[in-house]
Amino acid sequence: MALAHKGLDFECLPWHFTEKDKIKFSGQEKVPVLIDGSNTISDSWEISKYIEKAYPESPSLKLDNGEVLFIKFWTETVLHPEILQLLVLDIYNNLSTQDQSYFRESREKRFGKTLEQVVANRQKRLPRITKLLTPLRSTLSKQEYLSGETPGYSDYIVFGAFQWARCTSGFLILNADDIIYKWRDKMLNMHQKLALNALGYDV
Amino acid sequence: MALAHKGLDFECLPWHFTEKDKIKFSGQEKVPVLIDGSNTISDSWEISKYIEKAYPESPSLKLDNGEVLFIKFWTETVLHPEILQLLVLDIYNNLSTQDQSYFRESREKRFGKTLEQVVANRQKRLPRITKLLTPLRSTLSKQEYLSGETPGYSDYIVFGAFQWARCTSGFLILNADDIIYKWRDKMLNMHQKLALNALGYDV
Repeated sequence: MALAHKGLDFECLPWHFTEKDKIKFSGQEKVPVLIDGSNTISDSWEISKYIEKAYPESPSLKLDNGEVLFIKFWTETVLHPEILQLLVLDIYNNLSTQDQSYFRESREKRFGKTLEQVVANRQKRLPRITKLLTPLRSTLSKQEYLSGETPGYSDYIVFGAFQWARCTSGFLILNADDIIYKWRDKMLNMHQKLALNALGYDV
Repeated sequence: MALAHKGLDFECLPWHFTEKDKIKFSGQEKVPVLIDGSNTISDSWEISKYIEKAYPESPSLKLDNGEVLFIKFWTETVLHPEILQLLVLDIYNNLSTQDQSYFRESREKRFGKTLEQVVANRQKRLPRITKLLTPLRSTLSKQEYLSGETPGYSDYIVFGAFQWARCTSGFLILNADDIIYKWRDKMLNMHQKLALNALGYDV
């Protein structure tokens, strides 16, 4: 989404959890990894800082707003864990066989229980995420985007969590009458429906 | 803090919870209320927008960063309620007699229990607020202020919650080795120690 925002052409390569070897050249083991000419950058925040600097003439991702970092950490430490607890079994079920055992083992170790136990009674835990999204909901009731009148990195990082959910599970996290749902819809449709066209569930 | 940030001179008037009459001219019942010449503005967010517009030549509060609104709602809907549950009895104990019965009655109605019950075992609930402050802590480990290299409205609104705590209670919410504590210390000392000089507890 950040690359599309900057109007940059790019090619996406599919990757498996267990293909650590394929990204070894980046000096670490996680995605995303960006290759731009002779430059290799990993981590979505670092990638965004890089493209903002390398392509200053295209629309800004508004990374200079200090509060963006708060949104990034809120997404990573509050929103992601909550979504993961709802969807971790769906993610597992959508993985290729080669990734499933790695994923189950590493995640069950992290949670200290089976994936089936983690998602048990998830319907009852929905009010938690609804409540936790209050600051986002209130913000979007006052302005078009988290970043203001136009989208910025903060919108993309929060949207990324919902897109992750949509690509891995048909479980409904947002109600259609939630203003966050309407904002997600705008995000899905922007940049020539980039996110909408990704393989996912119709939720 | 916002007025001081803008370099504006001002006079603060003490006010009691029960003195609704005194601020009736503002058309509502809550503080803060700003009187600037012939203008009367209430609500800290509206006041900040007003002074930003009326005094554009002084340092910006950076209200245009869209994410500031998220910080405002996070402070109001996540941080404030958590602090209130820890300190509500201390606040009550520091009120003048004329305000105490109003405060107890209205807050006990809101909580559905006595103030004493609300704060029971508060020491055990400290890990909750420590965890909830994670995005703030992570942000301040990367940059000087929530708003970036210099403070802005987002710093003042979050700091306001800690100042509220410090002015009403000696209960320790932050440990001295927490980076949030160090940031709070900078906030206490800026603008000629405006916040530090306010009547409060040495926590």
